Amino acid sequence: MTYCVGLRIDRGLVFVSDTRTNAGVDDVAIFKKMHCWTRPGERVLVLLSAGNLATTQAVVSLLNERTKAPEERSATMLEVPSLYQAAKLVGDTVKEVIRQTAPEGQNADAFGASFILGGQIKGMEPRLFLIYPEGNFIEAGDDTPFFQIGETKYGKPILVRAHDAKMSFEETVKLLLVSFDSTLKSNLSVGMPLDLIFYERDTYAVSLERRIEADDPYFKAISDGWSSALKDAFRSLPDFSA
Amino acid sequence: MTYCVGLRIDRGLVFVSDTRTNAGVDDVAIFKKMHCWTRPGERVLVLLSAGNLATTQAVVSLLNERTKAPEERSATMLEVPSLYQAAKLVGDTVKEVIRQTAPEGQNADAFGASFILGGQIKGMEPRLFLIYPEGNFIEAGDDTPFFQIGETKYGKPILVRAHDAKMSFEETVKLLLVSFDSTLKSNLSVGMPLDLIFYERDTYAVSLERRIEADDPYFKAISDGWSSALKDAFRSLPDFSA
Repeated sequence: MTYCVGLRIDRGLVFVSDTRTNAGVDDVAIFKKMHCWTRPGERVLVLLSAGNLATTQAVVSLLNERTKAPEERSATMLEVPSLYQAAKLVGDTVKEVIRQTAPEGQNADAFGASFILGGQIKGMEPRLFLIYPEGNFIEAGDDTPFFQIGETKYGKPILVRAHDAKMSFEETVKLLLVSFDSTLKSNLSVGMPLDLIFYERDTYAVSLERRIEADDPYFKAISDGWSSALKDAFRSLPDFSA
Repeated sequence: MTYCVGLRIDRGLVFVSDTRTNAGVDDVAIFKKMHCWTRPGERVLVLLSAGNLATTQAVVSLLNERTKAPEERSATMLEVPSLYQAAKLVGDTVKEVIRQTAPEGQNADAFGASFILGGQIKGMEPRLFLIYPEGNFIEAGDDTPFFQIGETKYGKPILVRAHDAKMSFEETVKLLLVSFDSTLKSNLSVGMPLDLIFYERDTYAVSLERRIEADDPYFKAISDGWSSALKDAFRSLPDFSA
């Protein structure tokens, strides 16, 4: 499993992904699930991936190969004219990979992968997409300004309750780390370290990129603090009386 | 979907179940998922069910039919000598129902159902079991003194963090209602009203049985209070600094 979140705030976009992959509990490894394409001053695109690792790596390889040999390719992540076209490129690529892997017909269950794509291209607004294994995609709006992929359930309630578009970047990272902490505590297939990217709107450069290790002092403060804050919150409610 | 929890505390056993069944979002209904067998002064057994409604109703019908015509039946919920035998009876019955429904072999995916069974029979300790669609079962211990069936993920983190065997009954109901509130807010297929039973150890009678409607004042106090307590808890944590 995997847990990745992309979240839109007024100030920009924040992305966090875990790094654990597993093919059974006795076959775990660390792989980066966050990929970034930048042309400074013109565009930043961030891709988070969940699902079959062979599929997601093939998709990213194909996207990168296209980046490397532009004269032989018609579309690349650095050349697509819009975020919409970038989402379509990722969707077409994942469909192509799954079709090649399962030649008898697309088998999204076994080889499936989903993606969160966000970023900004000069002259346009920051945008955030969720791309399905079938290759189609949806865009985040004001009512639901975040997407989750992988193990989404444990970390969702706090996102729904505490998200606010006017949040600072610093509060947003706190919110995402609380959401990740709940997920990490409940599902062994989601694991540290985490990767974090903050993109501030209209800068066309990554504002902050950070790997958060298991012993990161801020992450430990959030993880321990959230446990005791939750218990205090629970204690503050009135007991049942029959 | 469904959400049911059975939880063991030092004082006894507490059970809560939702009542929503659905065969698609346009085909929802209210059915009780909590069944109770009592022989006052000698035994109390409570059964919570999740899964295919035809299967769970058939299981309860078979268990009740056996109760009604004991001279033709070898085992009944009111006659089994132990909770272990009661769990085995439920397990055998669900296997039998699934076998009859899917004659080509047991298809637990389509017709599956799982159960939480708890109670006490005179001379023995209160016990709590989780019964799988395959008919086998496990018993709650001191380390994991609760079982959930149905949509278990949203409501699990608070149970894990706040449970304490020394809790009063009144605190336990508060904990279970917080867990149900998180689940109700996140999964439309879990719905009000809720059914609640408290069994106090060594009484061999149901101490409290209550249906909690959507407009129940205590449930509303918990639901509203938990939202704001969570937000306060979140605000109390330090913001990230890059």
